[in-house]
Amino acid sequence: MTSSGAPERLVYLDHAATTPVRPEVREAMLPFLGDAGGGEFGNPSSPHRFGRAARAGIEQARRAIAAALDADPNQVIFTSGGTEADNLAVIGAALAARTRGRPFRVAVSAIEHKAVLGAAHFVADLGGEMLTLPVDAGGLVDAAAVRTACTRGAALISVMWVNNEIGVLEPIEHLARAAREAGTEVAFHSDAVQALGKVPVSFRGSGCALLSISGHKIGAPKGVGALLVRDRRTVTPLLHGGGQQFALRPGTENVPGIVALGKAVELAVRERAELAQRLTGLRDALEHGIAAAVPDAVIHAASSPRAPHTLSVSIPGIDSEAMLMHLDMAGIACSSGSACSTGAVEPSHVLSAMGVPHDLGVATLRFSFGRENTADDVAAVLAALPRIVEKVRGLTAELRR
Amino acid sequence: MTSSGAPERLVYLDHAATTPVRPEVREAMLPFLGDAGGGEFGNPSSPHRFGRAARAGIEQARRAIAAALDADPNQVIFTSGGTEADNLAVIGAALAARTRGRPFRVAVSAIEHKAVLGAAHFVADLGGEMLTLPVDAGGLVDAAAVRTACTRGAALISVMWVNNEIGVLEPIEHLARAAREAGTEVAFHSDAVQALGKVPVSFRGSGCALLSISGHKIGAPKGVGALLVRDRRTVTPLLHGGGQQFALRPGTENVPGIVALGKAVELAVRERAELAQRLTGLRDALEHGIAAAVPDAVIHAASSPRAPHTLSVSIPGIDSEAMLMHLDMAGIACSSGSACSTGAVEPSHVLSAMGVPHDLGVATLRFSFGRENTADDVAAVLAALPRIVEKVRGLTAELRR
Repeated sequence: MTSSGAPERLVYLDHAATTPVRPEVREAMLPFLGDAGGGEFGNPSSPHRFGRAARAGIEQARRAIAAALDADPNQVIFTSGGTEADNLAVIGAALAARTRGRPFRVAVSAIEHKAVLGAAHFVADLGGEMLTLPVDAGGLVDAAAVRTACTRGAALISVMWVNNEIGVLEPIEHLARAAREAGTEVAFHSDAVQALGKVPVSFRGSGCALLSISGHKIGAPKGVGALLVRDRRTVTPLLHGGGQQFALRPGTENVPGIVALGKAVELAVRERAELAQRLTGLRDALEHGIAAAVPDAVIHAASSPRAPHTLSVSIPGIDSEAMLMHLDMAGIACSSGSACSTGAVEPSHVLSAMGVPHDLGVATLRFSFGRENTADDVAAVLAALPRIVEKVRGLTAELRR
Repeated sequence: MTSSGAPERLVYLDHAATTPVRPEVREAMLPFLGDAGGGEFGNPSSPHRFGRAARAGIEQARRAIAAALDADPNQVIFTSGGTEADNLAVIGAALAARTRGRPFRVAVSAIEHKAVLGAAHFVADLGGEMLTLPVDAGGLVDAAAVRTACTRGAALISVMWVNNEIGVLEPIEHLARAAREAGTEVAFHSDAVQALGKVPVSFRGSGCALLSISGHKIGAPKGVGALLVRDRRTVTPLLHGGGQQFALRPGTENVPGIVALGKAVELAVRERAELAQRLTGLRDALEHGIAAAVPDAVIHAASSPRAPHTLSVSIPGIDSEAMLMHLDMAGIACSSGSACSTGAVEPSHVLSAMGVPHDLGVATLRFSFGRENTADDVAAVLAALPRIVEKVRGLTAELRR
């Protein structure tokens, strides 16, 4: 990472976008990235010893994930990541409902990840209907909206456990209970990608029918995730082919990725409480430091329950893309919102849904913490930020003149 | 892989199911499986230095694959593997045609991989239509059938380049030309998963609109593949979310897998001619050896053009699952057909489509060669086979009595 003119010290505060691979996770997966000398490279569908070795790796990961998330091993369906898990949940549940003669209709919160929103739009494109559950100014979904969606015959309700942009923690158990008590046939789905390893997650205890997780947000590599499925009849597969994974997600399994996911989930859940406490301290220190240094900064969802790792802040008068660039030059990596839709400079749909005005929306930074961050990282940001804010405010004002 | 009672020498002849990861490929991907010390773990959608390092890895892989397969870099859409690439091609092209007001109809050969067949069935489930292109006794698709399918308004025609079970090499350029000359609006797709690295493959030269490849058949790890797309308007995305990969395949890219795929494709194409010659020699030696040792053995597609790495042979009077078990105990790994649908002991759809009788169909073995195989492996199989055939024939006869 060093090149001429590079900053001496790099501070990575973009863990909600992705995380470094944990050494223990890499160690666990390496045999499954092996050559002909080891047998773990086999196709898990093959009945011979090479296939059995690969199959054993998958089954161990399935058991580890089930134990960590309070699920049954056969409820774990591996996918290529959170996006596929969300699509399988939303589109799969809608198609399954239609096949059973139920309304082809899904309800998703206004602050869902683009994967859930995009999948819901696709249901509408296929002739179905998409309902949107609003959020309040703090980013929280109300149980009454969930009840109304059930009454209107939604086949699926999707509310993310922790929002990726603002870190708000939705009352999932409460909302899932509201859906259950509405007495209609509805599958409650939660995208728990940002919740896993940060807040307690119990599949059984949550009341969710479907739950999405992703590897690369918790120290596993990109390209693997899972959908937890309480009852396989709830979803129709999106991909078709060989009969792998109960025919719900065919295709040769990503064995090294799955083994990595198993290890990463196990570690994330085991270390969660200690990590959450530490990250809360770091996040609060940064939050208070920014509030002190930039008095007109606006902390989003400040009065809502929040996951410990994410801080979303608007700084009036800055262009967030310009801020990112200057922070990057200073060796500080953070985000202007969801990392999944860069390029377009428009206020985030999450902030818009919370009623944040446009000019604040485009002036938003997201700092997200991970296990390797320390108080020195917070100090480095607080040392650099005031100067960069001043510079970018000047540039932004000039551009807008 | 060693345990008490294990054979001294292992012979892996199941490369059509999966291949060991090549050391050069593992080396190339390791930085992208790195920890916070390197920057390559970043999210390729992030604009900061961590994101740019990951993005650079993807773009290099895209360029390497395009150069090796005679395509443009922006025609390479990365997927989670061959199954997803096939599904995106078949379902995506059918949905795109329907959106344009064209018939919601696809035509696929009778010997396609289950991923293509399953996707075509799904199109039918969604209210569309699936046409089947027959094959002759040698497993070859006729251009007249392709023309008829075009006349009937098929939006997509799918014929695999090299069949995974019998190794037959379809006349793709000839069939694609027939589709083009029919003058209808049709996308010609080929699943080239088993062709890549074994026979020459030029995307531009083939006349294909869509082409599927997979990493784990050519020394990259499982969990990554690609669909080459001549014109992105041909397909509607199956997964929805962030705008990654021209919004045709959203979701955070599997960066280490993609980097591995780039390296593996580059090596596979560079070494193809030499490897093909060597594997042809090994395959022919095994084929002649089996014919000499088991005179009533039937070699499938023997008079058809075939890829060099695959040998499909029926041995009358054996149960192929029992044979696999005894071969495995002797340290020899091969397959009874497609590795993607084990468990069900039924004649393969490929052999059935060629008119192979049921009793021969359930008595079929597939040996598939790869780069680490040598003449010693062939000798080991030929030394063990007659004794195992005799034993299994006895057991099978007893079971059937």
